[in-house]
Amino acid sequence: MRTTVGIIGAGPAGLLLARLLHRSGIDSVVLESRDRAYVERRQRAGILEQGTVDVLREAGAGARMDREGLPHDGIELRFARRRHRIDFPALTGGRSVTVYAQTEVCKDLIALQLAEGGPLLFEAEALAVEGAETENPRVRFRRDGREQTLDCDYVVGCDGFWGVARNAMPEALSRVFERTYPFGWLGILADVPPSHDELVYARHDRGFALLSMRSPTVTRAYLQVPDGTDPADWTDEEIWDELDRRLETDDPAWTLRRGPVTAKSVTPMRSYVHEPMRHGRLFLAGDAAHIVPPTGAKGLNLAVGDVVTFARALVAYREKGDASRLAAYSADCLRRVWQAERFSYAMTTMLHRAPDATPFDDRIQLARLDRITTARSAETDLAEAYTGFPLDQQ
Amino acid sequence: MRTTVGIIGAGPAGLLLARLLHRSGIDSVVLESRDRAYVERRQRAGILEQGTVDVLREAGAGARMDREGLPHDGIELRFARRRHRIDFPALTGGRSVTVYAQTEVCKDLIALQLAEGGPLLFEAEALAVEGAETENPRVRFRRDGREQTLDCDYVVGCDGFWGVARNAMPEALSRVFERTYPFGWLGILADVPPSHDELVYARHDRGFALLSMRSPTVTRAYLQVPDGTDPADWTDEEIWDELDRRLETDDPAWTLRRGPVTAKSVTPMRSYVHEPMRHGRLFLAGDAAHIVPPTGAKGLNLAVGDVVTFARALVAYREKGDASRLAAYSADCLRRVWQAERFSYAMTTMLHRAPDATPFDDRIQLARLDRITTARSAETDLAEAYTGFPLDQQ
Repeated sequence: MRTTVGIIGAGPAGLLLARLLHRSGIDSVVLESRDRAYVERRQRAGILEQGTVDVLREAGAGARMDREGLPHDGIELRFARRRHRIDFPALTGGRSVTVYAQTEVCKDLIALQLAEGGPLLFEAEALAVEGAETENPRVRFRRDGREQTLDCDYVVGCDGFWGVARNAMPEALSRVFERTYPFGWLGILADVPPSHDELVYARHDRGFALLSMRSPTVTRAYLQVPDGTDPADWTDEEIWDELDRRLETDDPAWTLRRGPVTAKSVTPMRSYVHEPMRHGRLFLAGDAAHIVPPTGAKGLNLAVGDVVTFARALVAYREKGDASRLAAYSADCLRRVWQAERFSYAMTTMLHRAPDATPFDDRIQLARLDRITTARSAETDLAEAYTGFPLDQQ
Repeated sequence: MRTTVGIIGAGPAGLLLARLLHRSGIDSVVLESRDRAYVERRQRAGILEQGTVDVLREAGAGARMDREGLPHDGIELRFARRRHRIDFPALTGGRSVTVYAQTEVCKDLIALQLAEGGPLLFEAEALAVEGAETENPRVRFRRDGREQTLDCDYVVGCDGFWGVARNAMPEALSRVFERTYPFGWLGILADVPPSHDELVYARHDRGFALLSMRSPTVTRAYLQVPDGTDPADWTDEEIWDELDRRLETDDPAWTLRRGPVTAKSVTPMRSYVHEPMRHGRLFLAGDAAHIVPPTGAKGLNLAVGDVVTFARALVAYREKGDASRLAAYSADCLRRVWQAERFSYAMTTMLHRAPDATPFDDRIQLARLDRITTARSAETDLAEAYTGFPLDQQ
């Protein structure tokens, strides 16, 4: 089997890349180890930056997102019983975000790809990337119990943190930057309209809480929990009670709406970057190269940034013979990646209570929140980062 | 002995407070344990915020500062061999800072106080504050080998971190917030014109360096050193060599000017806040209540903010019968104090290399610097904090 760009992984990064290449007349093959039903069910992020929304529209994948996605012009910070709204468009010259689940983005892109794109092979398990330093890199994969080879001009690893693509990076050239956090998020989906029409990020002495949504009828909510927590340790009622406590405010208008919990899971928190993101003709994109804690809602958007950078670089090379952007792929991505890592780290440490937090640390958190909510410069800094760092411009 | 306001400590806070009260027709007595020569020799901070400059002028203590002080419209951040200037007036609507050593401020205020103020008693060692909860608090002190009592309406403890005033705060009501850092600053004075006309804050893998000045002919410079370093461990040449390394840049115009080192000392780094800052008729001001690491140049300016807050509150009470601002003294000061603590902590952690720093921590530092030097919002946030948080408005 032969193609121009071999793409490992049919998450949002791989699917969007296939789509962008197709629209530029470049053929690709997507290999995905799971089946379609699994991919379309995976619950992940749900906040699309302005730039991500723009790219999905340009890629022709914006129709249902524009119908069903919820544009959000702000978030609420809640701390010390206070509520403070951050007004994104007012602070960023009109930028905002859209709540539309990653799983819906994947469904839309899969449908498009199957209707008019190149091959998208489910249950095709990538085993290894070979020949990254040659002109003809290959992906060995297993499908229908049989090992096969996909010969490519370029291979893009969009296969996530546990994928195989990163293994093909020579160890001697690789550097890993990592931080784990001694807490995770207990997340729920519940069949009840969200209690607020925007996301609420709450800093509380008992720990962080986030109130979000999947749709006008489905609440998504998270609680900071100790590392290693089993979701089964928490009854639904305990979760609602704890959300109620951490979201406490002096505003009498506030009430938390409760409803039946339909899903419960715990996500660990990690910051991770692999440098470089390119070796020869192998390119890493999304979680294959970097992980952020979810506090800044950056994971999916970073993956989109990576594949847009790659697609534009490849088009520049094929249409104008300009190879410089392919060569600069890693450096271009990493600058954006590290800004997202910085922001996610800052949001995480400002809002979560570490198990070994001192009273000084608590006061610094409150002073940081006080600054953001009283100084336009600091508030703008946050709003710009939340709505998204600019994608590489063509 | 009797007075309206008993002031413990003839550092800049106590001296300025005596001056502000004198100009409002309120009498005071200042008790200082050291002799005049010692006070006028103490080397401390040297960066005056815009608000501090304004207050010193209003207090009639601005003449020599305006002649000899060096107005600075910016600082330089140096990292990854790059130089970036932060333009204060452009970012803050005209605010700037002035380089004028604390020791010179003290000389000016002492001269004024002796010429036309109330009693300023040197070698008068405060022993204890008593009766803070009564209408008539007292300071017991020793002078000429004899114990005496200063009866007051109010006592203001401007006696620094090691002073006695804070001991009169009831333990049950006190909360202490503290962080120590595993490094200090090795500081030098050198008889050589400064190598740059503004302060240079350098982040380097070998540790932080700061290039400052005392005057157009005297360089002040600092190196991050491990906790417990003895200044004698460093020869002058080693200090200059290390400054050269940490200030490295790709800018060929840069040279470090070396000259004879005339003073050498090591300062530990600490963040500390005592809450509350008032108990009954005892008020704490400056280092008696809070310490910041010197990275943000906030210590002296915070002390000025405290005594201005107290003086205005007392005047409001005596002239308008409004006791609310005296009652709110602690809360009013602490809000400003915590912003300075936050800023000093942020500057310190962004620029110093902790002994246990991970590669991830290094990259986050560089990403923070990258953000500040490329986003106007983040740069403005820093410039506003550096030039000073507004003093309590009357």
